[in-house]
Amino acid sequence: MLRSCTAGLRSLWALRGGREGVPRPSTDLQPAPRLFSAEKVIHTDCALPNPSWSKDLKLLFDQFMKKCEDGSWERLPSYRHRCAQISEDFKNYFLEQKPVKEGRLSQVRLFTRGFEDGLGFEYVIFKNNDEKRTVCLFQGGPYLQGVPGFVHGGAIAAIIDTALALCAAVPGKAIMTANLNINFKRPVPLCSVVVINSQLDKLEGRKLFVSCNVQSVDEKTVYSEATGLFIKLDPEKKSF
Amino acid sequence: MLRSCTAGLRSLWALRGGREGVPRPSTDLQPAPRLFSAEKVIHTDCALPNPSWSKDLKLLFDQFMKKCEDGSWERLPSYRHRCAQISEDFKNYFLEQKPVKEGRLSQVRLFTRGFEDGLGFEYVIFKNNDEKRTVCLFQGGPYLQGVPGFVHGGAIAAIIDTALALCAAVPGKAIMTANLNINFKRPVPLCSVVVINSQLDKLEGRKLFVSCNVQSVDEKTVYSEATGLFIKLDPEKKSF
Repeated sequence: MLRSCTAGLRSLWALRGGREGVPRPSTDLQPAPRLFSAEKVIHTDCALPNPSWSKDLKLLFDQFMKKCEDGSWERLPSYRHRCAQISEDFKNYFLEQKPVKEGRLSQVRLFTRGFEDGLGFEYVIFKNNDEKRTVCLFQGGPYLQGVPGFVHGGAIAAIIDTALALCAAVPGKAIMTANLNINFKRPVPLCSVVVINSQLDKLEGRKLFVSCNVQSVDEKTVYSEATGLFIKLDPEKKSF
Repeated sequence: MLRSCTAGLRSLWALRGGREGVPRPSTDLQPAPRLFSAEKVIHTDCALPNPSWSKDLKLLFDQFMKKCEDGSWERLPSYRHRCAQISEDFKNYFLEQKPVKEGRLSQVRLFTRGFEDGLGFEYVIFKNNDEKRTVCLFQGGPYLQGVPGFVHGGAIAAIIDTALALCAAVPGKAIMTANLNINFKRPVPLCSVVVINSQLDKLEGRKLFVSCNVQSVDEKTVYSEATGLFIKLDPEKKSF
């Protein structure tokens, strides 16, 4: 629901890391964040292949990594742990709301990265800034089950929210989901790979209108369609 | 997204269990489900207090348990593991879709129960059948973080989907979410307790229209409002 932009994330909560056996991208060479807790947290980029990735997911990943070579597409890194410090934007915006208790700061995890490799959300998002669109490659693990054999609609909603937010992301600005409207057409089989194509449709002042579809790798099946409205937060204003 | 009704769940995937120190409700005294896998799975009702529950959550739980005494309200049990057997309704409905691979059957978990106690979704849902409404008491743990200090919008969408689906549930029928439309008004602080009030607004053939709001325990803050459209599945028909 609430997110800073990708660039903002990297500057506000500058994170670093890399998976074993995978070269560390240069964008990850940033200082570790300061935590309130003294606990040492290892920051690993989760948007890179791991042994749980299926052939389909690895193949699509490789195809998009190729597209990144000329700079038209960019792979967005993603981390399990974020610095628990409340960003100034949000602190100003929701003054009266108490954040997480100090004692639990070291326990926090980004929701879509809260499961161990392969069990939950396995995904990577690629962005094309010129075309104002993103492609999210998603494999829903066995801990995301809804009805037996299929991914829970709430998990689909969560990955759609994530994909749309990163499509709407504005450099240097914090954004918040104001509306999410999802049409579910068919259930997504557990452990299968789907592709979420998102695009920025319209900009109106602080409002960002985005939409997406969730489809099979062969593009023959559309599982869901969704629209999202995101708002750039303005610390001077306490409401939308 | 896809769910059978509460009664259906109990008959199709009859589950049993109870938490330590908490009397086992009579509804739980049912045979364990048959799994494809030979692995023994312990079925524990997760919709009962555990040490991670805050005072607010325990207090509200006790209040609603009191309301259950005269039979007007009912606590809905909830389990981490479901029988992985695809129910006949869904099997008939989505014939061409392949379910989870056999080898991973023993790993599956219901998405909203996939985290250890206190880390993810802690919730209990009470239903008033006469008034066609449910109340979901929800505490979002530290693994559900979106922006630092607040619950991820996708996690809010997931618990809303769950609450609405159980409100729309029809005895003996499998239902599927067709649409979920959520307005996010304010972010929910991590580890706080919120109350989701859902109601069945309209029934039109196989369509069930439901709505809900997500508010603070003191009812002073409305965090989100949502509507949902659920469809009763008809094995004879392959589309909505």
